[in-house]
Amino acid sequence: MFPEQTILRIPGPTPIPPSVQSAMQRPMIGHRGTEINELLQSIQKRIKPLFGTKEDVLLIAGTGTAALEAAVENTVSAGEEVLVLVSGAFGDRFAKICDAFGMNVRRLEVPWGDAVRPGDVTEQLKKYPHIKAVFMTHCETSTSVLNPIEKLTKAIRAESDALIIVDGVSSIGGTPTYMDEWGVDIYVAGSQKALMAPAGLACVAIGPRGWKRIEVNKAPRFYFDFLAYRKSLERNFTPFTTAISLLYGLDASLKVIEKEGVDVVFERHHLMRDMTRAALEALDLPLLAEEEFGALTVTAFKPYDIDAEKLRTYLRETFSLQLAGGQQHLDGRVVRIGHMGYCTPADILQTISLLEIGLEALGKNIKRGNGVAAAQDVYLRKGIEK
Amino acid sequence: MFPEQTILRIPGPTPIPPSVQSAMQRPMIGHRGTEINELLQSIQKRIKPLFGTKEDVLLIAGTGTAALEAAVENTVSAGEEVLVLVSGAFGDRFAKICDAFGMNVRRLEVPWGDAVRPGDVTEQLKKYPHIKAVFMTHCETSTSVLNPIEKLTKAIRAESDALIIVDGVSSIGGTPTYMDEWGVDIYVAGSQKALMAPAGLACVAIGPRGWKRIEVNKAPRFYFDFLAYRKSLERNFTPFTTAISLLYGLDASLKVIEKEGVDVVFERHHLMRDMTRAALEALDLPLLAEEEFGALTVTAFKPYDIDAEKLRTYLRETFSLQLAGGQQHLDGRVVRIGHMGYCTPADILQTISLLEIGLEALGKNIKRGNGVAAAQDVYLRKGIEK
Repeated sequence: MFPEQTILRIPGPTPIPPSVQSAMQRPMIGHRGTEINELLQSIQKRIKPLFGTKEDVLLIAGTGTAALEAAVENTVSAGEEVLVLVSGAFGDRFAKICDAFGMNVRRLEVPWGDAVRPGDVTEQLKKYPHIKAVFMTHCETSTSVLNPIEKLTKAIRAESDALIIVDGVSSIGGTPTYMDEWGVDIYVAGSQKALMAPAGLACVAIGPRGWKRIEVNKAPRFYFDFLAYRKSLERNFTPFTTAISLLYGLDASLKVIEKEGVDVVFERHHLMRDMTRAALEALDLPLLAEEEFGALTVTAFKPYDIDAEKLRTYLRETFSLQLAGGQQHLDGRVVRIGHMGYCTPADILQTISLLEIGLEALGKNIKRGNGVAAAQDVYLRKGIEK
Repeated sequence: MFPEQTILRIPGPTPIPPSVQSAMQRPMIGHRGTEINELLQSIQKRIKPLFGTKEDVLLIAGTGTAALEAAVENTVSAGEEVLVLVSGAFGDRFAKICDAFGMNVRRLEVPWGDAVRPGDVTEQLKKYPHIKAVFMTHCETSTSVLNPIEKLTKAIRAESDALIIVDGVSSIGGTPTYMDEWGVDIYVAGSQKALMAPAGLACVAIGPRGWKRIEVNKAPRFYFDFLAYRKSLERNFTPFTTAISLLYGLDASLKVIEKEGVDVVFERHHLMRDMTRAALEALDLPLLAEEEFGALTVTAFKPYDIDAEKLRTYLRETFSLQLAGGQQHLDGRVVRIGHMGYCTPADILQTISLLEIGLEALGKNIKRGNGVAAAQDVYLRKGIEK
C-alpha cells in the first residue's frame, strides 16, 4: 500500500547510511594503484578500535560465513580435536564447518536462549585435554544472547593452550569488544551488521598466538589463506581482486562511526537494547535472553499466544516493517528485532508502535501505547544523561 | 549524537524516495534530443491526474514561488485590479508578488487558522466589480488550512468573470484536486512537496480561459512566459535549458505514485492527517485548523505552555527530527508537522512518539503513550479497511 519504504529491523543486513550509499557509487579504480594503498591503510588503522585490538585486521571479500570458514581452515587441520560452544544457530554453524573439514568436534551445547557458562567450558577442557581450538559466538544472533567472552576466555586460558576464536559478526561495531585485553586470538566480523555496509566483506583480526598457529597449520586453503592476506597487507594490497565499492562503503561507515564516537555508538546500542527490552516486557512478551546476557544488537521475544509468522507477515505487508523470525527449532516461535548500526532510539519507538498495532490486529489483548511509553521511560532516564 | 539520520517532517522540502534519488543520478543528456521529447511527453500525460485536468502542465525550472510569480506575470498587468485571498503567509506572498508588479491589490484577509469563506469572496467581488483575477491558496502551508477551492470557485464564477488562479504547491500530489471540474483556470504546484522530488520544478496547469487571457496580456515577461513554454511543449521541448535531473526525479516519483495508485495516495494522506490530529488532541495540544479545513499534508498545533522553538530545537538536537515553526506573527507560537509525499502512517507514529518525549522533557505534564495510542486507534479504525 505505501511507497517504497522498508523499515529494516532484522539483525543484518542492516540499513546503510546515505553517505555509505553514495560512497559506494564512486567510480571503479584499478585494484593495484596507490588509491587502494591509501584506502586499505586508512581502513586498517581505523577499524582496530572496534575490535579492541592493535593487531592487523584482514579484509576478505566474502560474507560472515566466509569469515567463519576462513578462521577454521587457517587454524586447525582434519582430525584435530576442537571445542565449539553452541548456544544457537551460529555456534551450530561453526560446528558444521568444523565437521565439513574433518575436525574431531566436541560440542558444548546450551539451551537456545541461554549463554555458555565458563565453568562448563572448563569441564569440557578437563575432559578433552587435546583440544586445539575453541570456537565461540559473541552475539548469538539466533537467540539474541551475548556470550560472556571475557569470562569464557579467562576460563579457557586457565585450563588450556587452545586457540580462542570468536565469531563477532553480529556484535562488532555495536558491542564493546576488547580482543587484546580479553586474550582472544582471532575475532571475525562481517560488513553487513553493525558496520553498516552491504554484505560482502569479512573482517578478521588475528593476534600473535593466532599467527603462530596459522604459520604452521598445513590444512589446505587458497582463497582464504590468511598468510596471503598478511603478505599483501604489508604492501597495502589484497592478494586477490579488491572489492573496491565495499571498501568505499566501509571507509564511509567508519567515518560515520568516528563522527559519532566509538563509545557513543556502543552507548546508543545499549540504550536501544534497554528500550526494546522494556517495551516488550511492558507488552507481556517474554524475552528469550536474560537481562545479563541480552545482546546489544538484537532482541528476540516469544509472541506468546500469537503466531510469530502471522505477526511478521502482518507487519511486513502492512507497514513494510521487516522483523526476523526464529531459526531451526525456534522457527515460528520467536520474533527478533534487529537494532544495530544505522538505527536509533527513534527507530525503536517506531518499531514498537507498529508492533503494538500488529499485536492488537492479531487479537492479542494489550494496552497499546504502554510499550512505547516504557521505551520512552528508558530513553528519558538513560538517554538524556549524556 | 546519532548517525546521519534526518527525520524530515517539515511541510516541504520532503524526503525523496530511493528510486527518485537514484533516477536523478542518471548521466546528463543533451536537452534537445529525443530522450527529452519522450521524457516530457510521458511526464505530461502522467502528471495531469494529480491536478484533475486534461490540460497541459507546463514544467518550468524554478521553485514554488517562481510558479506563483509566473502565474501573476502571465495573467495580469500593472494597474489592473486583483483580489488575493489571504489566509496565511502564502496568500500574503501572492499579494506581495502582485504588489511588486504594480497591480491594484485587494486583499481579503482572514485570521490565520481560518479558511476563506465563499460568502466573503462574493461580497468583495460585488464591492470591486473590476477585479480581473482572484488569487488563492489551496493548502495554506503556514496554518495547515485547506481552503475550500471548489466552493470558492463556484462563488466567484457566480459573480464575476475574473480569472481563478490557485496555489496548489503544498496540496497537489497529496490532496484530491479536480481543476477542470471545479473550474479553476490556473493551478500551480512545486516539485518539492507531495510530488516527492527536490525543489526546482514549477508545474503549471492552464485551462482555456487562462490561455485566452495569457495570449492578450501585455505584461512584460521572458523566462516565465507561458506562451514560450506552450510553443516548445508542442514539440516536446522546454524553451530554455531543460532541468534534466529534476525531470528524471519527477518521472521516478510519478512511477512511485502510480504504483501505489493516485486514489490510495490521497487516502494515505487523509489517514496521516487524521492520525496526526487525533494524537495532538489526545495530548491536549490545540490545533490551528478546524477539522473541516484541516490540510491533508501538514498539521499545525500550538504547544500551549511550551515554547515552540525550544520544543523544535530539542527534537532536532535530540532525534534529528525536523518540524517546522510558525511564520510571520506565528513565529515561536506554533509547530507544524509535515505529512506529505514520501511519508507513511508508520512515520506519523514515530513522530508522535518523539514529540511526546520532547513535551515531557520540556516539562509539559502529559500521559506519554496516549498520543501514539490515539494515532494507532485511527489507524486501526480507518487504515485497515482498505
